[in-house]
Amino acid sequence: MEEQVEMVGKAFVDHYYHLFDNNRTALLSLYQPTSMLTFEGQRIHGVDGISAKLNQLPFDQCCHVISTVDSQVSAFAGGIVVFVSGSLQLQGEEHPLRFSQMFHLIPTGQGSYFVQNDMFRLNYG
Amino acid sequence: MEEQVEMVGKAFVDHYYHLFDNNRTALLSLYQPTSMLTFEGQRIHGVDGISAKLNQLPFDQCCHVISTVDSQVSAFAGGIVVFVSGSLQLQGEEHPLRFSQMFHLIPTGQGSYFVQNDMFRLNYG
Repeated sequence: MEEQVEMVGKAFVDHYYHLFDNNRTALLSLYQPTSMLTFEGQRIHGVDGISAKLNQLPFDQCCHVISTVDSQVSAFAGGIVVFVSGSLQLQGEEHPLRFSQMFHLIPTGQGSYFVQNDMFRLNYG
Repeated sequence: MEEQVEMVGKAFVDHYYHLFDNNRTALLSLYQPTSMLTFEGQRIHGVDGISAKLNQLPFDQCCHVISTVDSQVSAFAGGIVVFVSGSLQLQGEEHPLRFSQMFHLIPTGQGSYFVQNDMFRLNYG
C-alpha cells in the first residue's frame, strides 16, 4: 500500500513537471473547478485561474529538477498527499531556484487523479 | 472562509512549534493512531512511533522561526492543508537549517484538530 502510494506520487510528479517544462498549457488537464493553488502566497481558485497563473509566470523556458518526493495516503478516500522539493532552472539565469511544493491528489473516478490542493513556495536561503 | 482557514492554520503552526521548542513530549497530543509522519524520507505511523521519533531527534534545545504559512480547505470535510517554510536553530550550531513541512489537519469533533499527515524536509541550499 505504502509502496503503491509512493509510486503514484512519483509518477504524478514526473508527469506534472514534464508538462510544466514542455507543454505548460496542458497542465490545466490536471486541475478541476474545485482546485486551489497558493503560489508564493497568492491564492487562486479553479481551472481557468490556475491555468492563467501558470502560463503567465514571468519566464518561458524552465527545467525542474526534483530532489525529493514524499507521499502519504490522505484522509480523503483514495486521495494522496505529495510533498516535493527540488530546483527550478530558468533560461538565462545562472543559479537555479530551490522550491518546495505540496499536492493533494484526489481520484477522478476514471483511474487517474486531479490536483485539489497545490501550494508552491520558493526557498530563500 | 479563506481567512478563517488561514487563521486556523497559523494558530496551529504557532502552537505546534511552540510545543516543539518548549515541551516536545506534549506534541503527542496533536497526533492520533491513524497519523503518519514522513521525516526526511523516513515513514512512521501512529502516535507512539511519531512521538518517539520527535523526542529522539539528535538535539535537545531548538528554536523554529516560521517564514511562511499557507493554508487551504482540504477535500476531506472540515480538514485543512497547511504548508510551512522556516528555519530551525539548534543549540550550539552557528547556522540555522531551512526546512519545509506540510500538515493535513482533521477535525477531532471536539472543536480542535489533529495531524493526519505530516511531512518534513530540510532544504539543502
